[in-house]
Amino acid sequence: MAVEYDGAGFHGWQTQESGVRTVQEELEKALSRVANHPVALICAGRTDAGVHATGQVCHFDSDADRSMKSWVMGANRFLPDDVSVQWAQAVPDDFHARFKANRRRYRYVIYNHAAPPALFRRQVTWNYRPLDVDAMIEASRHLVGTHDFTSYRSVHCQAKSPVKTLSRFHIHRQGPLIVLEVEGNAFLMHMVRNMAGVLMSIGAGKHPPVWAREVLEARDRRKGGVTAPPFGLYLVDIGYPEPFVLPRPPLGPLWLTTLNAADGGGADAP
Amino acid sequence: MAVEYDGAGFHGWQTQESGVRTVQEELEKALSRVANHPVALICAGRTDAGVHATGQVCHFDSDADRSMKSWVMGANRFLPDDVSVQWAQAVPDDFHARFKANRRRYRYVIYNHAAPPALFRRQVTWNYRPLDVDAMIEASRHLVGTHDFTSYRSVHCQAKSPVKTLSRFHIHRQGPLIVLEVEGNAFLMHMVRNMAGVLMSIGAGKHPPVWAREVLEARDRRKGGVTAPPFGLYLVDIGYPEPFVLPRPPLGPLWLTTLNAADGGGADAP
Repeated sequence: MAVEYDGAGFHGWQTQESGVRTVQEELEKALSRVANHPVALICAGRTDAGVHATGQVCHFDSDADRSMKSWVMGANRFLPDDVSVQWAQAVPDDFHARFKANRRRYRYVIYNHAAPPALFRRQVTWNYRPLDVDAMIEASRHLVGTHDFTSYRSVHCQAKSPVKTLSRFHIHRQGPLIVLEVEGNAFLMHMVRNMAGVLMSIGAGKHPPVWAREVLEARDRRKGGVTAPPFGLYLVDIGYPEPFVLPRPPLGPLWLTTLNAADGGGADAP
Repeated sequence: MAVEYDGAGFHGWQTQESGVRTVQEELEKALSRVANHPVALICAGRTDAGVHATGQVCHFDSDADRSMKSWVMGANRFLPDDVSVQWAQAVPDDFHARFKANRRRYRYVIYNHAAPPALFRRQVTWNYRPLDVDAMIEASRHLVGTHDFTSYRSVHCQAKSPVKTLSRFHIHRQGPLIVLEVEGNAFLMHMVRNMAGVLMSIGAGKHPPVWAREVLEARDRRKGGVTAPPFGLYLVDIGYPEPFVLPRPPLGPLWLTTLNAADGGGADAP
């Protein structure tokens, strides 16, 4: 199933021993009521506290006899209003939301305006310094491709390998919003927020665009920039190879809709 | 000054005797600290509980010697994060935010999608029935011009005259969002929400487009439709005649930016 959530009220996706509120726990509670048996969920991307999703994908096993519509409407009836199931469909036994995913897409939304946002303050990252989008686009080109992203991952990251492949990094300004769109096979902990932090420093003129590459080549998190806040970050799409054809994520609000290649600039891997 | 606020956490603009949280009270408290004397605010449009604003205009009197930047930054330092002052400027003594305003513009944002929104659930009005935008546009044409809007005002409305002039009613769909944009000299209590309720009924096929006119001509609130929820409503712009030239409201998120005349459809008064 695909799930949308407002991360502002959650301590991230994953259920924690401390009992704080998580998306996984709310969804498992609701689905267990629909299934009439305990449900254990696996998701494609475990988002951090404050991070949103419009197209999170997750799977579970059940022998309950329910229509897809019943799973969706039933779950939404029992869910709090900051989580919403968008669709559900049956998948083959060898599907796995996390291990079969081969493409993940995130958006990072910056509100670049002198005065702070009162509306959408938990849905964007405010940056009052006028940002040079062309410099950010130039910097982003250094990050596309297969690299060791050690400098861009949290020191708490537990991934086995820091080598990941970014297939797309597009940046687009519309009015006061700057939207970073990044797609890759997989992401390290805090990787998008650390890239957003470096790009905002470059956009503000604190560093030249080539700094994004220098940080990358240092392979040292201490050489990187500030981790950008979580509220601007959205997990928007998960891709699976054949034969796991899933519906596309629903169109979200305008800043979450697919950017045209003609908008803004950036790079796609060859 | 111009003010943006997230109406979800407020019992509307106006300070009430019951002591509930209002935008006016938060602003007066913050400005009084900046001015170092009590400040009384007058606004252009007193919004209801739950209604948002990106371009509310208000004025106050003060003999404190502060730069315009100090008023803005000082107020924002003392304000809670769901209210934000966008700009301030000195005005002539005969300016009055409410009585001199001759044009008000509202947006009403509908999220027209099968599954409920988890993100932006307090910033849009969810309608799961597929809405026919062409029918809504046709209906909106009956409302443009000078009319007795008795059927579209709350029974609690205290305005002296129910006759108002709508100069513009445009409707635009982008992805799952339907944005109604309406401009007039003044609005009655609940008028935009009551028009939105009638248009959503028409869009859902419960009534033909001409019903908007039949409701109007009945001059009876009981003949109107359901009052649409407040969360989709935004006060976006206030107009003043010469010589009161004010800055334009800041660009908000995409769905709050000015629609092009080429987008969607609707009517402007001749």
